[in-house]
Amino acid sequence: MNHSSFFRMTVSVAVLGVSGIAQCVAAESTPPTAREVPARVLPVPDTVSPQMQKIIGTPLSPTWNVYPKTPEEWKAQVAKTADAAVRGLPAMRAALKVSIEPMTIDGVKAFMLTPAVIPPQNRNRLLIHVHGGCYVNGPGESGTSEATMMAGFGGFKVLSVDYRMPPDHPFPAALDDAMTVWKAAQKMAPAKNMGIIGSSAGGGLTLAVVLKAKMDKLPLPGAIAPGTPMSDLTGAGDSFHTNAMVDNVLIAYGASCDARAAMYANGRDLKDPLLSPVYGDMSGFPPTILNTGTRDLLLSNTVRVHRKLRQAGVEAALYVHEGQAHGGWYRDYTAPESKETFEEIGRFFDKHLGR
Amino acid sequence: MNHSSFFRMTVSVAVLGVSGIAQCVAAESTPPTAREVPARVLPVPDTVSPQMQKIIGTPLSPTWNVYPKTPEEWKAQVAKTADAAVRGLPAMRAALKVSIEPMTIDGVKAFMLTPAVIPPQNRNRLLIHVHGGCYVNGPGESGTSEATMMAGFGGFKVLSVDYRMPPDHPFPAALDDAMTVWKAAQKMAPAKNMGIIGSSAGGGLTLAVVLKAKMDKLPLPGAIAPGTPMSDLTGAGDSFHTNAMVDNVLIAYGASCDARAAMYANGRDLKDPLLSPVYGDMSGFPPTILNTGTRDLLLSNTVRVHRKLRQAGVEAALYVHEGQAHGGWYRDYTAPESKETFEEIGRFFDKHLGR
Repeated sequence: MNHSSFFRMTVSVAVLGVSGIAQCVAAESTPPTAREVPARVLPVPDTVSPQMQKIIGTPLSPTWNVYPKTPEEWKAQVAKTADAAVRGLPAMRAALKVSIEPMTIDGVKAFMLTPAVIPPQNRNRLLIHVHGGCYVNGPGESGTSEATMMAGFGGFKVLSVDYRMPPDHPFPAALDDAMTVWKAAQKMAPAKNMGIIGSSAGGGLTLAVVLKAKMDKLPLPGAIAPGTPMSDLTGAGDSFHTNAMVDNVLIAYGASCDARAAMYANGRDLKDPLLSPVYGDMSGFPPTILNTGTRDLLLSNTVRVHRKLRQAGVEAALYVHEGQAHGGWYRDYTAPESKETFEEIGRFFDKHLGR
Repeated sequence: MNHSSFFRMTVSVAVLGVSGIAQCVAAESTPPTAREVPARVLPVPDTVSPQMQKIIGTPLSPTWNVYPKTPEEWKAQVAKTADAAVRGLPAMRAALKVSIEPMTIDGVKAFMLTPAVIPPQNRNRLLIHVHGGCYVNGPGESGTSEATMMAGFGGFKVLSVDYRMPPDHPFPAALDDAMTVWKAAQKMAPAKNMGIIGSSAGGGLTLAVVLKAKMDKLPLPGAIAPGTPMSDLTGAGDSFHTNAMVDNVLIAYGASCDARAAMYANGRDLKDPLLSPVYGDMSGFPPTILNTGTRDLLLSNTVRVHRKLRQAGVEAALYVHEGQAHGGWYRDYTAPESKETFEEIGRFFDKHLGR
């Protein structure tokens, strides 16, 4: 939008409720009210790379609000999306010089992503990865994209958990599988040499694993990197409103991602900290690096976790990426923003993990 | 907005340009396009304190787009706003146990804010404060509110610069005055024991002072705290669009604040780093703590500075406050978010300043 057109448009700043415009003068004495923001045009920002412009400028799918309703429809949609994702992975692994090895760890499927060169300081370190996909998408190899970037850009071995998912396996299957791998990983490296990373549902799971490890008196990792975590499934958080329709990935609260999360929750109270970790006790958490974007529907979910961690005295670093919607930094490994973000996460792990 | 009404509303996700809906399938091969977001209702978030709800829920002024056009009208508006601000200051100083002393430093007016109790580690430290007000508002005592909170919540002596402003004194008067005080302050404390803090225009000035000190080979402060900095007067930055009409303080790019900034710039190239510090060379900057809010029109201006600092290898911490528009954390000293934020800034200064 150019600025003159902005001011020409008919701005209907409706003050909802009965008190109307007079509130502006009497704001001190009246309760705060909801208000309407007018329709706006969002240009593609010129403050990001061409690759990121393409990601940010991708129009909403015309079917964003049409999604599967039955388990069979969900499975077909998940398989189709996974097939498309898997097709791009060999080229990325080749470019980032990362190899992949499927394995089974105490009955849980997983993939080990190993970079061609592991710097000396990372040889006794291991990262555990829990993928995103709103707790329903990303099965098998299709869930290893973020883990591959972390391995390649950061120079870490990354063990990506191929956890069980709905429709067949609701909560707590995913968390159980992640915990099984975390326990088994104690034989692979000292806990303090290990980090946990994951974004979106994987960010929620990263936080849930630490909460569960605390409950079960297990060793905690040396650092964690939850990206744009689904930390609050209840719909609380201001950016569910301010970034509704602005985020071209999640689009709005109550859309497809939350339908998938509901399948995962399977009727359980959404305020359970193992489903919505922002309600958990974060005291004693390891150092945490959080990533989100200015257009992210989960911007508030991320900054609220940051605040909770700081209130608990935990070292916590926040990165908010210009113009990016939900998880923009792991959509295209050729975007300079992707490399920069995973290098930043790598430096954070390097600073905080044992060797 | 409740979720059912959200999905009932007629969502006009207009894909602007000629290619239309077909782009969703062919997104890889077509250039990214602007898109329209529909009008939305923003509820007052329930994830912040009651005091912050009142600040966030304040309706836009019905005259937000009507502002002075002549120097005389500006002076009258500035004086009226200043008078109102000054009336609230004695109560805040009493509550926070901070005293104020006007002074003149090498010809520049200033105020020293001194807390009743200065903890031992802060006795040889000093913070320099440059107030906000879009380079035009906040003369005299009216510009000392943020400095008072920093002194009271952080336990620091704070020297607030009452710099000259337009209409009478455009660029570089404000920067010159801040530099005069920074030079004079070298006799008050070692540079490494001093920090610089300021928000909005004061955030821009904080960054400009460090850029100018680098140019002039002056000592640099030990740490700085630019809040929601006016780091880019050119209008670049995605949140100028995504948070337009969402931020109830600045409201939109090109509105009153930018009219004031234009008086300050006085025809100078807005990309000059001393006016728009995001375009400056930030290598060698001291550790920096940045604050902004999820509804802040300058969210992008803030996170872009964070990214530039990190690219230059500078230690930089970012805090993004839930639901807050421009500078929400220094509007009401009784809000728990205000105390928390200034305590966080204080801890950052304590970590990085010499003693």
